[in-house]
Amino acid sequence: MDFDAMFNAQLDDLKQEGNYRVFAELERRCGAYPRAKSHDDLTPDEVTVWCSNDYLGMGQHQDVRDAMKAAVDSCGAGAGGTRNISGTNHHHVRLEAELADLHRKEAALLFTSGYVSNWAALSTLGSRIPDAVILSDALNHASMIEGIRHSRARKVIWKHNDPEDLDRKLAVLPANAPKIVAFESVYSMDGDISPMAEIVEVAEKHGAMTYLDEVHAVGLYGPRGGGVSEREGLADRITLIEGTLGKAYGCVGGYITGSAALCDFIRSFASGFIFTTALPPAVAAAALTSVRHLKTSQVERQAQRRQVARLRAKLDAQGIPHMDNPSHIIPVMIKDPVKCRMLSDILMRDWGIYVQPINYPTVPKGTERLRFTPSPLHSDADIDRLVEALTVLWKQCALAHAVA
Amino acid sequence: MDFDAMFNAQLDDLKQEGNYRVFAELERRCGAYPRAKSHDDLTPDEVTVWCSNDYLGMGQHQDVRDAMKAAVDSCGAGAGGTRNISGTNHHHVRLEAELADLHRKEAALLFTSGYVSNWAALSTLGSRIPDAVILSDALNHASMIEGIRHSRARKVIWKHNDPEDLDRKLAVLPANAPKIVAFESVYSMDGDISPMAEIVEVAEKHGAMTYLDEVHAVGLYGPRGGGVSEREGLADRITLIEGTLGKAYGCVGGYITGSAALCDFIRSFASGFIFTTALPPAVAAAALTSVRHLKTSQVERQAQRRQVARLRAKLDAQGIPHMDNPSHIIPVMIKDPVKCRMLSDILMRDWGIYVQPINYPTVPKGTERLRFTPSPLHSDADIDRLVEALTVLWKQCALAHAVA
Ligand SMILES: Cc1ncc(COP(=O)(O)O)c(C=O)c1O
Ligand SMILES: Cc1ncc(COP(=O)(O)O)c(C=O)c1O
Repeated sequence: MDFDAMFNAQLDDLKQEGNYRVFAELERRCGAYPRAKSHDDLTPDEVTVWCSNDYLGMGQHQDVRDAMKAAVDSCGAGAGGTRNISGTNHHHVRLEAELADLHRKEAALLFTSGYVSNWAALSTLGSRIPDAVILSDALNHASMIEGIRHSRARKVIWKHNDPEDLDRKLAVLPANAPKIVAFESVYSMDGDISPMAEIVEVAEKHGAMTYLDEVHAVGLYGPRGGGVSEREGLADRITLIEGTLGKAYGCVGGYITGSAALCDFIRSFASGFIFTTALPPAVAAAALTSVRHLKTSQVERQAQRRQVARLRAKLDAQGIPHMDNPSHIIPVMIKDPVKCRMLSDILMRDWGIYVQPINYPTVPKGTERLRFTPSPLHSDADIDRLVEALTVLWKQCALAHAVA
Repeated sequence: MDFDAMFNAQLDDLKQEGNYRVFAELERRCGAYPRAKSHDDLTPDEVTVWCSNDYLGMGQHQDVRDAMKAAVDSCGAGAGGTRNISGTNHHHVRLEAELADLHRKEAALLFTSGYVSNWAALSTLGSRIPDAVILSDALNHASMIEGIRHSRARKVIWKHNDPEDLDRKLAVLPANAPKIVAFESVYSMDGDISPMAEIVEVAEKHGAMTYLDEVHAVGLYGPRGGGVSEREGLADRITLIEGTLGKAYGCVGGYITGSAALCDFIRSFASGFIFTTALPPAVAAAALTSVRHLKTSQVERQAQRRQVARLRAKLDAQGIPHMDNPSHIIPVMIKDPVKCRMLSDILMRDWGIYVQPINYPTVPKGTERLRFTPSPLHSDADIDRLVEALTVLWKQCALAHAVA
């Protein structure tokens, strides 16, 4: 059996569609974000990163780095075991308490990533609650989809951000079946925000549990960074809030929060939580510092909002179309994987502007895009330069009609 | 629907069986491993950890810590994105090259953990190779089992470490079906090592791909720490070697190595690789340093072997039964979850000796055990004290016949 030939055949298909991925090899320059050193010979040595999910630049924050380094020196590089077998460190426990407080929940549970938290929590809920039905928003993230799939629970997909469709789909299920409504707050690729109050109301009406992914919202929305559910005053009506430490908090790791019973249940039964080395204590210490900082500081959120608004306005002024949404994410639709990569390559090579082309499977085929995430660290001059580059390209490539 | 009541009912069952888990909250003292500060009021302030999977104490190695801290200062706390979208850092690329070299393979691919590497690689292979059949050793790790389950490929379980049974099971499969033989080198709970040459031979005879988990062997076996496959000179006959950076290397993260086509295939199609924030560059830098160090240094491996042999001999001298195996893992069978926890509690409280009781679901019910992992950092005096404590307990508790 020639396995390599089999692999290469499938890779060739990707290449032909224009969906084969080439990773940009960078080194973000700490202290000089959004600048990064590029390790690609065809690009300028230093580039400006326009597509990071370290939305507020917290990864370079002095206090965050200091906390991480101090814990490396006091505890070592790794945790040394699973949470159960010697891997639970004081820093994990403190971070879990902080996260529970962030969402005003009884408890929190850490995972190695947001992906694993979604996958492990949903697969455990779906498989261990007898006869559970999971109602999943049509555009939920891969980690939720895979968790639901893994659980083998019955799954019902409702129309994206459509509480009425959810209501109809809940109404036809048996009254006594345990129901779990799974959705996100900020959808990361379109940047739209779910109608949370309506969804919660519909779920409550049918006695369903609510499972909310706030991965692209924690740190960014709500007066303490508790996400859209905090901003809307809805956190206490949501059963489980999931988040990441790898985006606005600038570190890595994921978590869930909820009732003490819920977190203890996932802790006790989730394979993806139990059978894996715990996060390094130093990562937990860094994340704790970041979460605490963003509980009180509004500076980063305000500056980010300013730069997001500024980029949108400048794009509008130049007639460069971008998706309208109420979040910090600015997608410019290209709708073709080859053109999208070409634009990204030119921006990188000629302008030192790094924005990764977003293609399948991250977005559906035919909806390829450039996705800009302005941060508090992008200067007005950075924004001007980006818009200048896009304006030149728009004219040169006569792309206007392709993106209408 | 009262979800909490449902959760509590299942937790109560665990409690009644004695399988409810209580995590020890510790802080390993960097520079003084295996000592740790205990945050539990009922135990001494300082305890000796006897169950860590930081098998060689590399987590406190000065070079590893220095590399981690330097990268925190040069790149920041986190990667800032998925590998595809701004998250690939120079340190990831360097580490992947180092891991490919470690196993003398064309390529390597990093994951956020060993769990995710197994789950993502096996679920992708099983689901994307048409008609694949996965032949899985009966005692494979949860991460492999879940990956196979997720793939929905046909699965055939063969008797643990039994190449003849594998041969029989391969023989009855259609000749043209793609076959994947999945197994481990060192099984972490019994400490036995698979008959690798025989397994490889059987797999080759049937044209099957081999998938080898070396999680508990990398860094520890083979002249460069390449695992049992290196020691036995079999690495080049194994299709895919998987490992972790969280155990002997003292950090966190997982990886696979294999042909360039294989790694590119997993990179391009595995949901668990694509849709998650990359490991912090600082973790990659620390792991790189650790892997490099153990490629040339034999000191840690030799000292570990000496202390493992010493503990075994001392246990024998006192008539304390332990599982016979050719690895660095010393299981003392208790075979009862309540007794196992009781012993562990007494060791911790009265002796400052921390060894977590190993219970279901990590091991089958009725095979509960204490699992000791002597490291180069455990002194002869530490070993003497552990054996003294166990000897006293063995007499006091009249456990001898229960563990015969
Ligand atoms: C909506 C959503 N949920 C979960 C995740 C996974 O989080 P993490 O990157 O921490 O694995 C992501 C992205 O990575 C995401 O976009
Ligand atoms: C055999 C085996 N494979 C994989 C893993 C997972 O590795 P990691 O801890 O890096 O997630 C473990 C233990 O955690 C293991 O024992």
